[in-house]
Amino acid sequence: MPGTLVTLDLVGIFVFAMSGALVGVRKDVDVFGVMVLAGTTGLGGGFLRDVLIGATPPAALADWRYLLVPAAAGLLTFVYHPVVGRLERMVNVFDAFGLSLFCVTGATKALEYGLGPVPAALMGMLTGIGGGMLRDLLAGRVPVIFRGELYATPALAGAAIAVVGTRQDLPVLAVAFAGASVCLVWRLLAMWRGWQAPMPTGPASV
Amino acid sequence: MPGTLVTLDLVGIFVFAMSGALVGVRKDVDVFGVMVLAGTTGLGGGFLRDVLIGATPPAALADWRYLLVPAAAGLLTFVYHPVVGRLERMVNVFDAFGLSLFCVTGATKALEYGLGPVPAALMGMLTGIGGGMLRDLLAGRVPVIFRGELYATPALAGAAIAVVGTRQDLPVLAVAFAGASVCLVWRLLAMWRGWQAPMPTGPASV
Amino acid sequence: MPGTLVTLDLVGIFVFAMSGALVGVRKDVDVFGVMVLAGTTGLGGGFLRDVLIGATPPAALADWRYLLVPAAAGLLTFVYHPVVGRLERMVNVFDAFGLSLFCVTGATKALEYGLGPVPAALMGMLTGIGGGMLRDLLAGRVPVIFRGELYATPALAGAAIAVVGTRQDLPVLAVAFAGASVCLVWRLLAMWRGWQAPMPTGPASV
Repeated sequence: MPGTLVTLDLVGIFVFAMSGALVGVRKDVDVFGVMVLAGTTGLGGGFLRDVLIGATPPAALADWRYLLVPAAAGLLTFVYHPVVGRLERMVNVFDAFGLSLFCVTGATKALEYGLGPVPAALMGMLTGIGGGMLRDLLAGRVPVIFRGELYATPALAGAAIAVVGTRQDLPVLAVAFAGASVCLVWRLLAMWRGWQAPMPTGPASV
Repeated sequence: MPGTLVTLDLVGIFVFAMSGALVGVRKDVDVFGVMVLAGTTGLGGGFLRDVLIGATPPAALADWRYLLVPAAAGLLTFVYHPVVGRLERMVNVFDAFGLSLFCVTGATKALEYGLGPVPAALMGMLTGIGGGMLRDLLAGRVPVIFRGELYATPALAGAAIAVVGTRQDLPVLAVAFAGASVCLVWRLLAMWRGWQAPMPTGPASV
Repeated sequence: MPGTLVTLDLVGIFVFAMSGALVGVRKDVDVFGVMVLAGTTGLGGGFLRDVLIGATPPAALADWRYLLVPAAAGLLTFVYHPVVGRLERMVNVFDAFGLSLFCVTGATKALEYGLGPVPAALMGMLTGIGGGMLRDLLAGRVPVIFRGELYATPALAGAAIAVVGTRQDLPVLAVAFAGASVCLVWRLLAMWRGWQAPMPTGPASV
């Protein structure tokens, strides 16, 4: 992976880990639980993808930076949570950056491991949303993607663009930029405009 | 896998996915969450089995039909949920068909990957009950197998029969039919007669 | 693995499985759900580790004793739960033994599979705490490690000692004994003195 992508990847993990740690602090979890939530949120999506595509042990377990970053994010959030909490809107923006990047890198990696285009796009989406899902499961919350926010659809779109571009042999960074941009803009617009995914209509099912 | 088994497998996935989607609709989850619940419920048991026996990437990620079927089931249920909801009793019957089939195909696959008879039977059971467990975890419900319904025991019985028959080199379809029939009849009788698994007795443990 | 370690491993699984079964009995789960909770709690940590490091199928699926022990623990707890419940304090002590052993064996196995020292220590910790986390997820409880008890930190310490000792080529049993002792003493002291991990301080984050 080019150095630029690694840096962006680590930034995404850092922000995801902060969002996990913040959930932990608000649930009055001790410092260790905060670290576990930070690590799970930052690395969980990639772990799920790597286990499913058979890329074990996951890359994050072979590179100390991938372990140091969520640990630092967890510890910083634990200590400075009043500041982080006030900046949550900004954390959410960074979270959108992380989502955009993960869906692209996840889809690219799945292609490298021989998956077809549709499963690769799904693995990209899973890389983006998996950490947040695990975080919410562990913290006993309804997973974010089930709360009517447009979160997974932008990730799937970004992953699909990355898949199509990669199979056309377009330059790696251009493809990554295109996929991540679509996901990012869509997600940010959804946050700022309050866009929602369609909800069930008609009489309630009992 | 013979064509007949693939067709039955897809029918099972379709019905499992419908049950997952219905849970999502009732929790007022948006269309995307409904699709995720449909996919997880339809494919989750097989994913858990494949990850545990080392058969990665899971077969469903290499065959577009296995991704199309739960997507279609999720979308149909999202749109026509009042109809699906009224037919839930019928969905439960189909769910029993899916359980019966998955426990057999899961056990057979585990044997092919070199597992011994007891672990293979457990993997068959896991294939049958795993999707529903993941669905309930994601939806924040008590997993179905913990609610006193006879659900996992018939699956274990069907898987055990499939294991014994396969190791005796009996014909594949005959073994599958025998295992699935026992699971199906047991599960349907349990539903219709309200059979329950034994509950803890004696003074409550504090 | 030397015979002594296998025996200790099985004892740890037995006690973990009892704690899982006891949670099931108290939630009024039927006999089958109790068995599933027993198996998940006893074997889940090792399964998570093996799936992540690529050691599939997990060792427990290739050795009938590893399946018999949690089944026996689940059944015994189901039948004699009033007795087991009264002995819970003792179960907690044995649970500390299991934790101490699993963190050491888990770290050692991760090293054997080529992981670096830090990831190997994390895998050791995961082996120790994973079963209880899965148990609490399935039972709809807040995971034990998030409840302010010192549980994961001693496991991480024991795993770290095992990693350092193994890399210094010290004798296997001596290393295992040192790592497990530190974890055990720390955990027992935390239980008896009511030690808690640090909690978030400062104004509540909203």
